[in-house]
Amino acid sequence: MTIVANVYDVTTWTIAGSPGVTAVTDIGAIINSIIADIKIQQPTQASKPGAVIYIPPGDYSLKTRVVIDISYLQIKGSGHGFTSSSIRFNSGNTSSWHEIWPGGSRVRVENTDGNNQAFLVTRNGNPRLSSVEFLDFCIDGVHFTPDENSYTNGKVGIEVATDQDSFRIRGMGLVYLERGIVIRNADALSITGNFLMENGNCIELTNSGQGSSVTNNIIGAGYKGFSIFAENHWGLLISGNNLIPRGKSMVHFKNCFRSTITANRMHSSWPGMVVMEGACDHNQISANHFLRIPEYYSVFAGVNNGQDDLYGLIHVRGTGNTISANHFSYDVPTGSVTPPGAVPTIILLWSGADNYIAANNAVANQAINVVCVVSAGPRNKILDSGTATQFLSYTSSANYSFRATP
Amino acid sequence: MTIVANVYDVTTWTIAGSPGVTAVTDIGAIINSIIADIKIQQPTQASKPGAVIYIPPGDYSLKTRVVIDISYLQIKGSGHGFTSSSIRFNSGNTSSWHEIWPGGSRVRVENTDGNNQAFLVTRNGNPRLSSVEFLDFCIDGVHFTPDENSYTNGKVGIEVATDQDSFRIRGMGLVYLERGIVIRNADALSITGNFLMENGNCIELTNSGQGSSVTNNIIGAGYKGFSIFAENHWGLLISGNNLIPRGKSMVHFKNCFRSTITANRMHSSWPGMVVMEGACDHNQISANHFLRIPEYYSVFAGVNNGQDDLYGLIHVRGTGNTISANHFSYDVPTGSVTPPGAVPTIILLWSGADNYIAANNAVANQAINVVCVVSAGPRNKILDSGTATQFLSYTSSANYSFRATP
Amino acid sequence: MTIVANVYDVTTWTIAGSPGVTAVTDIGAIINSIIADIKIQQPTQASKPGAVIYIPPGDYSLKTRVVIDISYLQIKGSGHGFTSSSIRFNSGNTSSWHEIWPGGSRVRVENTDGNNQAFLVTRNGNPRLSSVEFLDFCIDGVHFTPDENSYTNGKVGIEVATDQDSFRIRGMGLVYLERGIVIRNADALSITGNFLMENGNCIELTNSGQGSSVTNNIIGAGYKGFSIFAENHWGLLISGNNLIPRGKSMVHFKNCFRSTITANRMHSSWPGMVVMEGACDHNQISANHFLRIPEYYSVFAGVNNGQDDLYGLIHVRGTGNTISANHFSYDVPTGSVTPPGAVPTIILLWSGADNYIAANNAVANQAINVVCVVSAGPRNKILDSGTATQFLSYTSSANYSFRATP
Repeated sequence: MTIVANVYDVTTWTIAGSPGVTAVTDIGAIINSIIADIKIQQPTQASKPGAVIYIPPGDYSLKTRVVIDISYLQIKGSGHGFTSSSIRFNSGNTSSWHEIWPGGSRVRVENTDGNNQAFLVTRNGNPRLSSVEFLDFCIDGVHFTPDENSYTNGKVGIEVATDQDSFRIRGMGLVYLERGIVIRNADALSITGNFLMENGNCIELTNSGQGSSVTNNIIGAGYKGFSIFAENHWGLLISGNNLIPRGKSMVHFKNCFRSTITANRMHSSWPGMVVMEGACDHNQISANHFLRIPEYYSVFAGVNNGQDDLYGLIHVRGTGNTISANHFSYDVPTGSVTPPGAVPTIILLWSGADNYIAANNAVANQAINVVCVVSAGPRNKILDSGTATQFLSYTSSANYSFRATP
Repeated sequence: MTIVANVYDVTTWTIAGSPGVTAVTDIGAIINSIIADIKIQQPTQASKPGAVIYIPPGDYSLKTRVVIDISYLQIKGSGHGFTSSSIRFNSGNTSSWHEIWPGGSRVRVENTDGNNQAFLVTRNGNPRLSSVEFLDFCIDGVHFTPDENSYTNGKVGIEVATDQDSFRIRGMGLVYLERGIVIRNADALSITGNFLMENGNCIELTNSGQGSSVTNNIIGAGYKGFSIFAENHWGLLISGNNLIPRGKSMVHFKNCFRSTITANRMHSSWPGMVVMEGACDHNQISANHFLRIPEYYSVFAGVNNGQDDLYGLIHVRGTGNTISANHFSYDVPTGSVTPPGAVPTIILLWSGADNYIAANNAVANQAINVVCVVSAGPRNKILDSGTATQFLSYTSSANYSFRATP
Repeated sequence: MTIVANVYDVTTWTIAGSPGVTAVTDIGAIINSIIADIKIQQPTQASKPGAVIYIPPGDYSLKTRVVIDISYLQIKGSGHGFTSSSIRFNSGNTSSWHEIWPGGSRVRVENTDGNNQAFLVTRNGNPRLSSVEFLDFCIDGVHFTPDENSYTNGKVGIEVATDQDSFRIRGMGLVYLERGIVIRNADALSITGNFLMENGNCIELTNSGQGSSVTNNIIGAGYKGFSIFAENHWGLLISGNNLIPRGKSMVHFKNCFRSTITANRMHSSWPGMVVMEGACDHNQISANHFLRIPEYYSVFAGVNNGQDDLYGLIHVRGTGNTISANHFSYDVPTGSVTPPGAVPTIILLWSGADNYIAANNAVANQAINVVCVVSAGPRNKILDSGTATQFLSYTSSANYSFRATP
């Protein structure tokens, strides 16, 4: 077999002994068979370059979970294929529509194997998996159940369960999955140029991680879930993303530190756009644009993320964080503010010392507190981020310096 | 026909009944024929995944406009193929040159069908078109007429005329078109990683739009036209672009709101680098680098965009905008400043209330006004953005707060 | 020969008269032979679109340097293929490992031709070379010699030796090269989306350059070398990168001007994260996250870049620079600070006038000087970037304005 054998096409691959299985009937079984062949073709430790598995544009059912346990595998399509299933399912009779489903190189997640992931990446032993890439195809959860607006179906697009290095997810389209991308212990991961929309959660970086980048994506989660979640990460760069509703938050840090959120545009229908949970230290939020307006899609008019307007568009718990040069637009009818009559908070400094909040601008259709300090510790700085009447503190003035925007 | 049929190569496709038409003679007719075939192959509403049309490197004439009315079509080449036609046409005898034209997967716009677009995307009915992608090829207008330096030839590279969602334009090279990319009513559009140079206008986002991104491009329009124009857009993210002369402006917002321009580098030969026309509210301009120096290419030494040095490198009309953490370099011989003897303006706040201008630095070879306030309304803030002598106001001091850079 | 001939596959190409040479035995000779064929196929000045040379996933030895002297050549693989050779070589017995080498479309640099580059791009005459692209493959130097931790082997991945325009390097993986990318006189270059790690130097932009972008990369050089070096560049945009140890610096500007470093995340084990050498004027460093902690990989625990903690995480020599809205985390055991007992410097303003340092926040585990001014000239501004006790000056107070973070 020649080196060209390292290029596989799912539409031409057949499984020995199972001639009836095709990429159309079960692309998962086909890809697993290809991966098995790659291992056979590359038996030598000294040369395991991996392969590319190409998914041409087409409609493919995934009934068997793909399990990736080799490095350097590139799975590549020709089209992220997003269309709004949310609009379609809420549009009544669509029998006259040109098309009704997502497309491109479209993998429909329809497991019959008892699993819930479309792609599971996992390997034990050494080294960690390296440089697996997912590029330019569509993973479609097809339906939320029992309610197409529920954002629940148990389906996971890509789950990386074991340590890994230098993975790349680029140009993908993920839609109608309960969980889009779930990656444990990421190192030097790049998630860039993707279109992740109408998923329960879009990106979950779990357990721990370092030196990773989430850049230049368009992301919009469901109202229940995370747009971008990161846990125990440090050195995470979140930059150049356009974060669109809904999402119960735009960026949720749990015990993250030394990470940065910069040059993003974020739009949410609820408070809690950036949430720092646990102890989040030495992070930066700079040069971002935040917009908070009410939900305007009637289908979701009644839902919210459970936070009231005192929670803060940015909710900070931690020490030594920098929040600077951001813009905030807050435009909510006063009758919709919760609790009724409250003065909405833009930046809530719940706890922590040595935080630095400077040169932020918030514009609103009503009185706001640009910064509210609750029980924070010493040496917090609040500079040029709201007038004196836009500042509220529940703690001793010994704990902070405040210079009002004149 | 198998699923692999969703991968088309323009060089191997033939039109039934027209054997003489090839991609070399009329790539437009070939692509239209392919699109017709895609429709035939995908007749069922329930499965219309689209296709990829591949343009290998080569020189192709487009004589017939391509009309795209299907979703999930990916048109992809292997090379953006830019070379400077401007330098070449102004270089005299080029008979000894290695090559004289752009290359890569190069589509020459040479319509003989009475139309002016190379690619027109349009469809009526529901749903909107989704996820059409233009990737990694070159659209070359070949000549400006009657003057190779005129930036006029009526030619349009890509025009999207009807509502659409989740389109992607990535890695393209556009050159010598009067209008490069024109998109009406964009939603969640991504224009990224392109090389758009020597076009009359490069990017025009017309009529309205939301949640779109223009990121990581290298862009340089002609002296008459727009680098990036956006109309009635909101949620537009313009980030990580290198904006190169000429361009009568770098970013022109007309009635745009809640959008952000951040982490870009811009260089212009004239005032009006970022222009806000009409009412532009709640936008952000942060962490950008602005350079204004005279035109240094002798061919264009005499031209300008009609604005004098009092117009402002940033010209603001609107309310609640944030301009922070930017750098400005202004280096124009005093004898070239217009009107003669004027003190050049860096940021002109023409009108509007609640604008926030803070932590900007401008360096210049002469006296400048870092901020000039004309007839702006109340609650404007100008902080640490120039010394007292670098600030000029024509309005009541009741309308603004000013804190000089010490 | 049809236009499809402009698509070449290194694994199917043969050299007339040398049937024994394959891409596996010498991919360099194969690519040179392909380039020779492209020239034969494209003899006419009026049409030289170039070609794509595809490198499927595989292990290829490069024994002969590739010389590229045509425009519009795209060399493209299917996988950046990084794995950490550094970890592997320091792991003792790896006989039980799943794999031990980088993979993907992997070019091993094993020259036997007396040259040190894998890819040399060079051409004299007019015009400059345009639009050569390197995409999505791996260049692996295989070994450092004599010591796998030495970062020396004389090997260069990509060297562009003559003037060029509109080049693109995207999605590449470079590893274990003494010099990764070396480009002379870059114009409108884009280096984006790459994984450049464990190279002596990663990116060197030499001699001069303009209007170029280094964006959205993950970069980590060796302890001896440059992550990103630029000389006499202007209009350089460095944005959205995740810069990881080691690297003797993260960004080194030598006589650069009117360039910008924004929205990056940087982590270093030593001072001198951003270094301005010579005269560096009118540059911007805004909205970046800087982290300085000790080396934590025991293999490199003893090494450093030769700078002490008084050198500054940012070391400025020049005029009219802007440093704003950055975050700095400094966390080094006091016993490890050099010289012993020193108060570490975050921003060192060595020389120059009209620099603007504002709205920066530094958090540290000990007393620091956020800004130290040495012999700088007049009109420097230091605003809200540290308390009065965190500021140190060796020059006359007439040379600067200082406003302490309250």
